[in-house]
Amino acid sequence: MRTAADANIPYKVYLTENELPRAWYNVRADMKNKPAPLLNPGTGKPMGYDDLRPVFCDELVRQELDDTTPYIAIPAEIRDFYKMYRPSPLVRAYCLEEKLGTPAKIYYKFEGNNTSGSHKLNSAIAQAYYAKQQGLKGVTTETGAGQWGTALSMACAYLGLDCRVYMVKCSYEQKPFRREVMRTYGASVTPSPSATTEIGRKILAEHPDTTGSLGCAISEAVEVATHTPGYRYVLGSVLNQVLLHQSVIGLEAKSAFDKIGVRPDVIIGCAGGGSNLGGLIAPFMREKLRGENDYRFIAVEPASCPSFTRGKFAYDFCDTGMVCPLAKMYTLGSGFIPSANHAGGLRYHGMSSTLSQLYHDGYMEARAVEQTAVFEAAEYFARVEGILPAPESSHAIRVAIDEAIRCRETGEEKTILFGLTGTGYFDMVAYQKYNDGQMSDTIPTDEELAASFAGLPKVPDTVA
Amino acid sequence: MRTAADANIPYKVYLTENELPRAWYNVRADMKNKPAPLLNPGTGKPMGYDDLRPVFCDELVRQELDDTTPYIAIPAEIRDFYKMYRPSPLVRAYCLEEKLGTPAKIYYKFEGNNTSGSHKLNSAIAQAYYAKQQGLKGVTTETGAGQWGTALSMACAYLGLDCRVYMVKCSYEQKPFRREVMRTYGASVTPSPSATTEIGRKILAEHPDTTGSLGCAISEAVEVATHTPGYRYVLGSVLNQVLLHQSVIGLEAKSAFDKIGVRPDVIIGCAGGGSNLGGLIAPFMREKLRGENDYRFIAVEPASCPSFTRGKFAYDFCDTGMVCPLAKMYTLGSGFIPSANHAGGLRYHGMSSTLSQLYHDGYMEARAVEQTAVFEAAEYFARVEGILPAPESSHAIRVAIDEAIRCRETGEEKTILFGLTGTGYFDMVAYQKYNDGQMSDTIPTDEELAASFAGLPKVPDTVA
Repeated sequence: MRTAADANIPYKVYLTENELPRAWYNVRADMKNKPAPLLNPGTGKPMGYDDLRPVFCDELVRQELDDTTPYIAIPAEIRDFYKMYRPSPLVRAYCLEEKLGTPAKIYYKFEGNNTSGSHKLNSAIAQAYYAKQQGLKGVTTETGAGQWGTALSMACAYLGLDCRVYMVKCSYEQKPFRREVMRTYGASVTPSPSATTEIGRKILAEHPDTTGSLGCAISEAVEVATHTPGYRYVLGSVLNQVLLHQSVIGLEAKSAFDKIGVRPDVIIGCAGGGSNLGGLIAPFMREKLRGENDYRFIAVEPASCPSFTRGKFAYDFCDTGMVCPLAKMYTLGSGFIPSANHAGGLRYHGMSSTLSQLYHDGYMEARAVEQTAVFEAAEYFARVEGILPAPESSHAIRVAIDEAIRCRETGEEKTILFGLTGTGYFDMVAYQKYNDGQMSDTIPTDEELAASFAGLPKVPDTVA
Repeated sequence: MRTAADANIPYKVYLTENELPRAWYNVRADMKNKPAPLLNPGTGKPMGYDDLRPVFCDELVRQELDDTTPYIAIPAEIRDFYKMYRPSPLVRAYCLEEKLGTPAKIYYKFEGNNTSGSHKLNSAIAQAYYAKQQGLKGVTTETGAGQWGTALSMACAYLGLDCRVYMVKCSYEQKPFRREVMRTYGASVTPSPSATTEIGRKILAEHPDTTGSLGCAISEAVEVATHTPGYRYVLGSVLNQVLLHQSVIGLEAKSAFDKIGVRPDVIIGCAGGGSNLGGLIAPFMREKLRGENDYRFIAVEPASCPSFTRGKFAYDFCDTGMVCPLAKMYTLGSGFIPSANHAGGLRYHGMSSTLSQLYHDGYMEARAVEQTAVFEAAEYFARVEGILPAPESSHAIRVAIDEAIRCRETGEEKTILFGLTGTGYFDMVAYQKYNDGQMSDTIPTDEELAASFAGLPKVPDTVA
């Protein structure tokens, strides 16, 4: 399958450590329509630096609010930490191409070669670093699939910070070993919703059988951070600062492509809160925003939690408990609790404001895929490419395979890039269900969504 | 901690795919005292090509018996498969050095960045390839920690071969998710000892509560292979052919060291059957055998299964069921069933004949370490270097840390290389036990070993 033209393209393109990006790229700087500001749910007014400081670390608030500086330097200490697992490889999927018999060239940026098992470590070390710089004692957070919690535990262990993790209950139960990894790194882990917080007790009283959601867990972690001196809350996705840190993925991918003289046509990423997708597409989106190059971007989400494809573009709470600011985003309503599918990292009711604005403005496409089709793609990929993918990442694999098959039918020689965000080693309960033929697809009805939308907060027209 | 002299040495030294070794190195070719031949347990005569063909693939028998050819070409198809996860990085443990405050330079060759989670894939793809070349339908094998079984499942899925795995019962129970990974790759997995084989039923009748051992599982897999047309047995360690394939580890490590102009003083590897250690040290041992360079080699084994440090150098059965040939090796007796410690991959009663001969001839040292000390080292390493190690690999980490601490005390600036054979993502039951403070150390008494040695087979003096 390797043609003469491909002879110089290895299976894996690695950058050297000296080629690691020296600055993150802030896509907002190049957007004509900036993402809408966070609003104070009480006053309806935009949140400024002083409003956000009680929740987030100072430097991270600055990054959150900065929509004009295009490049922000990566501190040397963070770059040194990155060197323990980065640059990550850009992989040419020769075997997958051959098996599919497609004229498409398929590449994936593989972020799973670290103990957190995903790209989450890129932002975890940055956020922990700024917390340490500020002299804090520790941080609180939520985790869905457990990848973010593991990543944060690793970063905190490295820097000597305390780490308290609220873990979505269904993941906590399905993934006891994730909990043990976090404990090995010295973190405390609590299943959410829990009785340890006011908001947790309230949610449990209303929904005693809930398997939890990222929205619930965020509420609990924020409550603890804002009530414990020396602590701040950190978040693994959705926020602008997270997309900023994750731009290291796309910057590396772009450098690697430049090195081999290739330009991708289609870029595909799974989207829960948007951290991976936003990071992967960042430098390519820059060229599209500036009219320098065109790319197709495809966000892939679970049909059971379809924020982009069936959500509303509106101001909504970032959390279920309604303690967080309002963000303008594609949302299913902060009261929406998705069915217990196996991509815990994608079970979030909302979406990054930045990606939401880009989608709204027509710079991106979105597709919702069903769970069984996702695991079919995961198994296929594992057998052919040798990497057992995370269920989250497998959403992107599904659409990459679909696009490659389309190329086989049309004869188009497109170059496809997708984000392989992580490995599925802690998702074997899900794989077992698939292996046993017991996986099902649950999709919200229009009525369920309408009921959830009815709970969207009222925001003054002048702001929204 | 990075001195000026280190400035040119990155955290990770990668070879390019073109620098992947083109031939395996066969250490036996340079040994004056060759490893003793396998013997037929019935006749006491050396086993030849025709004797071994019913059990192993033809080409693998040739490799097993060849103790004169120094380099054996790696087929192009195997090199292409290697490119999906190799060359593996040689990592400079800057963070560990700094934390320990040692003048020693510490490097590790990391083999865990693939879905099997260990170095086992290096031999699995080779053995599956030769089985496929021979037109076989499938292969059978045993697995202890599950790493070998996973590796073989991956290789068989890639090549379209059937794969039947007998998994040591205690691992099967502690690691249900390992089973699911193998199933995802299409393998069948049976806990051993099982009622599916004659030898399994016999062992169960004698030891109904046994948690199994590699020796038992080997017996079962061999029985199935030799009784099923179109099948052969493959083994993940111990054999000469496996050490041959695993030499890719050491060859890459040596090339990477040559590239940065560094020569290690001490080379450390964990030793169960010897596959990792034999592969890691191979090209360095070549120089030592030829008197070109000197190195210290340290084999590290669990105190609960101390083949080198407390075993006898004698002919013994390779398996518990006594269906396999006799090998001359350091052994605890084929009837020895080690306590249920958490390094399943190191619970083997014997040791590679090649390594046994080298140890016997004074080319290597050996050390036995206790489980609690091993997990202390594992946790320490995970927090400092960011990689959660396999319990097996952590034996080498323990001794590497001990050597680095000794350097701190003596001021010696030694360069240490150890083999980080794999990750511990499927060993969280063990880590949980350690996290909960419930890990114990079980060491066989002299009486227990004496009883086991009493069962060693009688071999004519002229042969032994």
